[in-house]
Amino acid sequence: MHKILAVLSLILISRGLKAQEPAKILSSVFDEALTDRTAYNNLEYLCKHTKGRIAGSPAAEKAIEYTKQALIGAGADTVWLQKVPVPHWVRGIEKCRVTSSVLGRKDLAITALGLSVGTDEKGITSKIIEVHDFEELKTLGLQGIQGKIVFFNRSFDNKLINSFSAYGGAVNQRTMGASEASRYGAIAVIVRSMTQSLDNFPHTGVTRYADSINNIPAVAVSTLDAELLSQWMKTDPALNVHLVSTCRNYPNTLSYNVIGEVYGSLKPYEYITVGGHLDAWDIAEGAIDDGGGCVQAIEMIRIYKKLGINPKRTVRAVLFMNEEMTSTGGKTYAEEAKRKGEVHYAALESDRGVMSPLGFEFDADGPKLEKLQTLASWFAPYNIRDFDKGGGGSDIAPLKALGALQIGYIPDSQRYFWYHHSANDTFEQVNIRELQMGSAAIASLIYLIDLFDL
Amino acid sequence: MHKILAVLSLILISRGLKAQEPAKILSSVFDEALTDRTAYNNLEYLCKHTKGRIAGSPAAEKAIEYTKQALIGAGADTVWLQKVPVPHWVRGIEKCRVTSSVLGRKDLAITALGLSVGTDEKGITSKIIEVHDFEELKTLGLQGIQGKIVFFNRSFDNKLINSFSAYGGAVNQRTMGASEASRYGAIAVIVRSMTQSLDNFPHTGVTRYADSINNIPAVAVSTLDAELLSQWMKTDPALNVHLVSTCRNYPNTLSYNVIGEVYGSLKPYEYITVGGHLDAWDIAEGAIDDGGGCVQAIEMIRIYKKLGINPKRTVRAVLFMNEEMTSTGGKTYAEEAKRKGEVHYAALESDRGVMSPLGFEFDADGPKLEKLQTLASWFAPYNIRDFDKGGGGSDIAPLKALGALQIGYIPDSQRYFWYHHSANDTFEQVNIRELQMGSAAIASLIYLIDLFDL
Repeated sequence: MHKILAVLSLILISRGLKAQEPAKILSSVFDEALTDRTAYNNLEYLCKHTKGRIAGSPAAEKAIEYTKQALIGAGADTVWLQKVPVPHWVRGIEKCRVTSSVLGRKDLAITALGLSVGTDEKGITSKIIEVHDFEELKTLGLQGIQGKIVFFNRSFDNKLINSFSAYGGAVNQRTMGASEASRYGAIAVIVRSMTQSLDNFPHTGVTRYADSINNIPAVAVSTLDAELLSQWMKTDPALNVHLVSTCRNYPNTLSYNVIGEVYGSLKPYEYITVGGHLDAWDIAEGAIDDGGGCVQAIEMIRIYKKLGINPKRTVRAVLFMNEEMTSTGGKTYAEEAKRKGEVHYAALESDRGVMSPLGFEFDADGPKLEKLQTLASWFAPYNIRDFDKGGGGSDIAPLKALGALQIGYIPDSQRYFWYHHSANDTFEQVNIRELQMGSAAIASLIYLIDLFDL
Repeated sequence: MHKILAVLSLILISRGLKAQEPAKILSSVFDEALTDRTAYNNLEYLCKHTKGRIAGSPAAEKAIEYTKQALIGAGADTVWLQKVPVPHWVRGIEKCRVTSSVLGRKDLAITALGLSVGTDEKGITSKIIEVHDFEELKTLGLQGIQGKIVFFNRSFDNKLINSFSAYGGAVNQRTMGASEASRYGAIAVIVRSMTQSLDNFPHTGVTRYADSINNIPAVAVSTLDAELLSQWMKTDPALNVHLVSTCRNYPNTLSYNVIGEVYGSLKPYEYITVGGHLDAWDIAEGAIDDGGGCVQAIEMIRIYKKLGINPKRTVRAVLFMNEEMTSTGGKTYAEEAKRKGEVHYAALESDRGVMSPLGFEFDADGPKLEKLQTLASWFAPYNIRDFDKGGGGSDIAPLKALGALQIGYIPDSQRYFWYHHSANDTFEQVNIRELQMGSAAIASLIYLIDLFDL
């Protein structure tokens, strides 16, 4: 009887603690994140000293070394580098001049699309034709397109509330435009930058060539210059464009994912992955995309160690390499996990910017999703409200086949595409509190998912 | 029987319409706001051509003229100016040099506090003493303070999630610091800027002198220089500060509230007021505080007229003058309303910045608040979630006595104080979509409150 009472009271005490504990822990996590500048300072370093760290570049190597040290500094139990095969693409000279016998001359603000082939140094000169979607290409056919430069000028649909939906509705011009135009004999494509902003920053991003298609040069033009080009073409449809883009693809090379982990106290052989991608476009400081996601993952480790939070499962911060071009960082990480027979419980990606947190998306349904949505109540004091069905991100997607719950960190999206993939993605665009709130939200969510076995 | 059926079917039809209509109208309001640049262009004009439009300044006069025309352009049924008595305070030469026999010399980034008295052109030179609250003043007493400059250096509590709460916890140093220090014989005060940011922008704001107190000069110092000054004082407590601030108070003058209205279709003699304040600190472009609130109020009128939305009550956009110094714009507006016996149904203020909308606060309780909170469901498609108890704002507060429901527009607050009352409050800090989302939210809320008689 004595023994039963003792056990009962232990259960009651531990339950009492449990009801209090998560709220207290979350409060400590937010306090720590909001009063410490380590993550912000890490981001400043990545932006100012490893700017343009596209996979295969010397800047990427420097970022790998820095974040490895940052993870050690954060107190990770183990830190290591994981080999990743990556493409090696290098931007060249870029120039785009419009010449009209009616209107005169104008140089456009352009940037080559990632992985695109280039022109020679003399470049190409040609007539240009404006289209808005692939249907128009079909209508124009070989006759209308062959030998010309195709100008894709479909803008974002500003009526869409979520900026990522607007991006989703426009981005095939950038990813597939060169291939589609090439089918009809186009000699190059100029794509309106993927942004809602009207300014003079051209936004790069990857383009992909379909098999057995003549690979043609592809560049993005700033939205203001896209508007101007379109206007000029209305006045003078016969204007000429001279395009130079001497970017080149070199043989694949080797880079690394950077991984740091906190050992699980109860189930060390189950893993929870939290990551962003360490590579950034060569023209950007990569603050918003995605230095922020990287320093938030490192910050989670720092906070757990500082506050003595011991997750049951092993929690990893993974800074993926080469998300921007061919996502080999994420693929390699999942392949290695499979090869080793690792159990991957959940994975969270922070790659939608570092604005104020709205919440999280979960790739789950039914009772599983409902359980995850009950977590919202813990976040009410922090004004984090959205616990919706949705996706994780491209780096963690390959872990889905291993059973890992896919989680996306969702900050406010309204101004994200002002910066994305452009020289306007700088450290100065990040507000320290918005970054810190995100770090706290991520560290808290992972703590709760592990604690409650969700 | 025929007649009853006809009436019944009319009721059913109108109910059917009603259930659909608000959602459709809100959708049109958001579409219109998100695809039109008028509000953003109005804000650019206010920032770039009426910069520093503190009440009584020539820039304020220009802003009055511009926004009057903007309201006419928006299609307001009537537009008029309402006389407002305002103070006339003018900044002078400002200089603050620290001299230490140990550390050398350093000029600090300072700005005079609004309505503060000045020094003469030679300025004052004195020892300085650092305090963090009024209790410390009491402890130091006359003996510790008399003849010295008091340096208030209490920073924001970064652990507070809502930045306005952090501001609330620090701002009495700015508003009352001079009066409190003067009681103990201080000859001037230097106040740490009211911001969480660590940078070199000094932030101004109003200071108030208690009656029968010797009015002493008051300036704000940038947070980075506050940190530096504090460090220097630790090394050399005997350092000297030389302070010049030749600002002056002149006799009161006259300015105007700018008012535009859409006549009510059913209850034209009941009013709903939507406003921001047109004045801005003399050192700022006043984009965030509060050009944004003004152009959102004008935009509501434009949207109603463009879409043919006919509110039952008369809806007014009111651009209040002189919120920053003595709030006479709001007081005058309410006094006039009382004098004329106007019925004021509700009033909304947008003066917490122009970041992405979180929601609204209502000064209501019980069933009234619960009814207002049901409005949240209409805003779910726009990710606007917060419908909480709270306040409106200082310009509409005097309307409370007339029975007007007080409503505050609540955007995300995290980065607000980076800009507030400083030269960093510029047009470039505003994202067009965040501004537009706010305009749509405000126009939608007022439409629903009027429609449902909430």
